[in-house]
Amino acid sequence: MNEAIRETLLEAVRNGGATMRQRVGHVTVSYKTSWSDLVTEVDKAVEEAVFDLVKRRFPDHGVLGEEGGGAFDREYTWILDPLDGTTNFAHTLPNYVCSLAVCRGREVVAGAIYDPNRDELFFAARGEGATLNGQPIQVDAAPSLREALIGTNLLWDTRENRFASLPELQSLGQQVRGVRSLGAAALELAYVACGRLTGFAQFRLGPWDFAAGILLVAEAGGTATQFSGDPVDVTHASSVVASNGRVHGELLRYLQQA
Amino acid sequence: MNEAIRETLLEAVRNGGATMRQRVGHVTVSYKTSWSDLVTEVDKAVEEAVFDLVKRRFPDHGVLGEEGGGAFDREYTWILDPLDGTTNFAHTLPNYVCSLAVCRGREVVAGAIYDPNRDELFFAARGEGATLNGQPIQVDAAPSLREALIGTNLLWDTRENRFASLPELQSLGQQVRGVRSLGAAALELAYVACGRLTGFAQFRLGPWDFAAGILLVAEAGGTATQFSGDPVDVTHASSVVASNGRVHGELLRYLQQA
Repeated sequence: MNEAIRETLLEAVRNGGATMRQRVGHVTVSYKTSWSDLVTEVDKAVEEAVFDLVKRRFPDHGVLGEEGGGAFDREYTWILDPLDGTTNFAHTLPNYVCSLAVCRGREVVAGAIYDPNRDELFFAARGEGATLNGQPIQVDAAPSLREALIGTNLLWDTRENRFASLPELQSLGQQVRGVRSLGAAALELAYVACGRLTGFAQFRLGPWDFAAGILLVAEAGGTATQFSGDPVDVTHASSVVASNGRVHGELLRYLQQA
Repeated sequence: MNEAIRETLLEAVRNGGATMRQRVGHVTVSYKTSWSDLVTEVDKAVEEAVFDLVKRRFPDHGVLGEEGGGAFDREYTWILDPLDGTTNFAHTLPNYVCSLAVCRGREVVAGAIYDPNRDELFFAARGEGATLNGQPIQVDAAPSLREALIGTNLLWDTRENRFASLPELQSLGQQVRGVRSLGAAALELAYVACGRLTGFAQFRLGPWDFAAGILLVAEAGGTATQFSGDPVDVTHASSVVASNGRVHGELLRYLQQA
């Protein structure tokens, strides 16, 4: 792992988290695609600050962010979710993170997710494992869905298709120990990586939501695919199923049946 | 508020949380009513320690706990959930609390909920307001469900009726900004009290799950009822709907329609 890239990744997400900590509880909410799709000035401020840092240090790299901007046309592309869990942030519910990944071509080579509420920094570099605050982490050991705790978000979707995931969830939910909705996909992927969730499944996420998280899961010994079982492509929106690996086949089967 | 009762309440939940912090990640899971209804030795150890403390200080008071024991036949009854969020605890997911309430007759007169992960102590005494780590708290200001973040747990129920709540949730979910499942009812009620959630709705909880939480919500300016709109009775299992008050009528209407 290139040391300059690694340092910039960690510095950027830590700075993003510090901004969230300072401003939580004092933000103005705006709406994007619908009245349940929120953005705040903090999302925008963090994106601007992170991309300024990246462009200053790596002027030939590309950037792709949730709040506008960037293509996939350079050797390296930085993919940012400045504030994953915006609705939680707007409500001061302490589940929100800053997520940043670096791709070489279409492959994620490093990713960092920072949770400012718990001061937890998740980091992975391809082939080098995953860490939480510098300590190696791994996925949990649940051998089957009956012992699995699964994260998903029922209601994240366009207005018209808001309940597209219910039948799948119903089928899945009858097989698992519990389902949680934390409301922040990147945080939930980090939690799969460190064994706090056995798995995570969600329709139609943006690359910024999952780019860092899927590398964390893979480097922590788990598996991340689309609902179809195909590899996740970070250049497009995608469904994502992540797990400890051991329950992955069973998890895909229930999601595909529905 | 009787000072000896207040001190014992706070000491008990803090001690409970300290035990959880020490033992999380090193527990054995057992099953109660089904393979998704868990208990650990920590639930039992905390219950025993808290009731020992209460009985030593207040030998004429009664106790009622999740892990066995106690009736409602004294002037004062202490109601304990030693470890609310046992499944989260077993998975090291950091949403679990110790919840303790004191009733005089059938009325909750004081309650405390302690979150050892965030070192957050929620406390309320009837008529004296609600606090978080000593600072006054209040419910959020959302004027309608469209701006509301609602907590619920889809899958907490007996095996046969595990999806009883889905139609209600579906109806409700189309009206709200977001739904979260944190997996710990007492924590979610505390979050309604401090404005991190606008509301919380759940079928069939035990008195230990909600006794402290409903007082917190009421003293923070909110409202807690059954799904029917009737007052919650702490001597029985009950559905619970808690909110900031402003959205309560709308919330009950959607839950009752389904």
